Amino acid sequence: MPAHHLPIIVYYEDTDFSGVVYHANYLKYFERSREHMLGIQALARLYKEDGLGFVVYKIEMTFRRPAVHADELVVRSFSWTESPLRIVFDQSVWRGEDPKPLVKAQIELACVNRQGHPKLIPGSVLKIIEQFSPAPIA
Amino acid sequence: MPAHHLPIIVYYEDTDFSGVVYHANYLKYFERSREHMLGIQALARLYKEDGLGFVVYKIEMTFRRPAVHADELVVRSFSWTESPLRIVFDQSVWRGEDPKPLVKAQIELACVNRQGHPKLIPGSVLKIIEQFSPAPIA
Amino acid sequence: MPAHHLPIIVYYEDTDFSGVVYHANYLKYFERSREHMLGIQALARLYKEDGLGFVVYKIEMTFRRPAVHADELVVRSFSWTESPLRIVFDQSVWRGEDPKPLVKAQIELACVNRQGHPKLIPGSVLKIIEQFSPAPIA
Amino acid sequence: MPAHHLPIIVYYEDTDFSGVVYHANYLKYFERSREHMLGIQALARLYKEDGLGFVVYKIEMTFRRPAVHADELVVRSFSWTESPLRIVFDQSVWRGEDPKPLVKAQIELACVNRQGHPKLIPGSVLKIIEQFSPAPIA
Repeated sequence: MPAHHLPIIVYYEDTDFSGVVYHANYLKYFERSREHMLGIQALARLYKEDGLGFVVYKIEMTFRRPAVHADELVVRSFSWTESPLRIVFDQSVWRGEDPKPLVKAQIELACVNRQGHPKLIPGSVLKIIEQFSPAPIA
Repeated sequence: MPAHHLPIIVYYEDTDFSGVVYHANYLKYFERSREHMLGIQALARLYKEDGLGFVVYKIEMTFRRPAVHADELVVRSFSWTESPLRIVFDQSVWRGEDPKPLVKAQIELACVNRQGHPKLIPGSVLKIIEQFSPAPIA
Repeated sequence: MPAHHLPIIVYYEDTDFSGVVYHANYLKYFERSREHMLGIQALARLYKEDGLGFVVYKIEMTFRRPAVHADELVVRSFSWTESPLRIVFDQSVWRGEDPKPLVKAQIELACVNRQGHPKLIPGSVLKIIEQFSPAPIA
Repeated sequence: MPAHHLPIIVYYEDTDFSGVVYHANYLKYFERSREHMLGIQALARLYKEDGLGFVVYKIEMTFRRPAVHADELVVRSFSWTESPLRIVFDQSVWRGEDPKPLVKAQIELACVNRQGHPKLIPGSVLKIIEQFSPAPIA
């Protein structure tokens, strides 16, 4: 099954004085990608009409190589559900012809209402999650 | 009358790859200072209980010298009211013994309700604004 | 003469708890636009090879209406030179069919070397600046 | 052995429109804490004089409860070395009398030179790391 891909350009704002992308900003790249995967207008509507949103509850991230200003990156994302309440995203950042990702992460989210209480993932979201499911091993 | 002073330390997150503080981050420093001036708990209460907040509607800012990582800065702020709806903050960023500020700004805010409609500045806020009024010229 | 246009989508990261885009983030939108106008790869090369970059020294910005999560915005930019050392950008943020911009700004930049000393704007940059010059009044 | 504690106040800039602190910003809080632990001036000097810095290469983070605007938080940090090249920080964010942290993380850093090549952790840093080592189990 295909992954979701989002191109990202590294601007001044993304870097720090050591010359590379500030580590926390990769979480912004991953979050932007998830918004595009699930549909930004759909997410806005889900929050406004049904009071539902998604919160990150777990992150595992490893950094192999740094990105620098003007780099043209791609965020690659897969997703699946761990339970009716939780979604896992496998996300990584790639640059050009590099054979390995610069950064990779597994990020787990829960569906919550406005009071932060856990809620079932809506069917419309499940349908998208399945589209970006990693290929079955067998 | 005395100015309000807030110390700021420049962290990695504040800089960009050119080696200096990213220009937009001075607006964060100024905003933190305004929160401390008006009282952060008081601002949170005002929003929660009375549905009132403050929005920036005008900024004039000049940059004279850059700050760098590990700099220990001070934000100096004065304030006054232009009308029953609008507050002006005169804010500047200073470093050590430098005789002039690194950055200075005049930032104008309006009081609004949750729908973004203009509202009278509450008396509790006016009282604080007056405390940090610049010395009268005459 | 035509303006430069950059589309921007408002992500979670851009907003604050008052529900709208945090005011300092418009400076990021304007800066991204300037990078695209001047060419991000060209700017990276100019810094790396010639040690030249651009620093903001003056900002005037007014906020008319707020943007919210999921908004699809456009940054419109014009530019001209004030002197052989300084560039002015007239930039504004637009949403859909709104007849007026949400935010508009005049942002002035200087060309500097790595030590922060003023330098002549390179010819390659001047050529681009002229392309986005506002229409002559007469 | 004692942990390092850094107080943090939640400003507007830290939140997003869902009303809580944006998840990536906890990495900023952790990074500020590490800068204070190791000494911000010492880190600046180490980079300037010896060309040495620290890069994050692994993060594991879990989020239990959200922080909101005006919260007064404390970042608690422990540290130890995994090898002569790598430091581990055990960091968590606490609020008031809550018996459990809002967020906790294990963040691993490597010492690198300006070219990003791994280098031995300097003795001056090792000495500080040991001061904040968690109590021995046996």
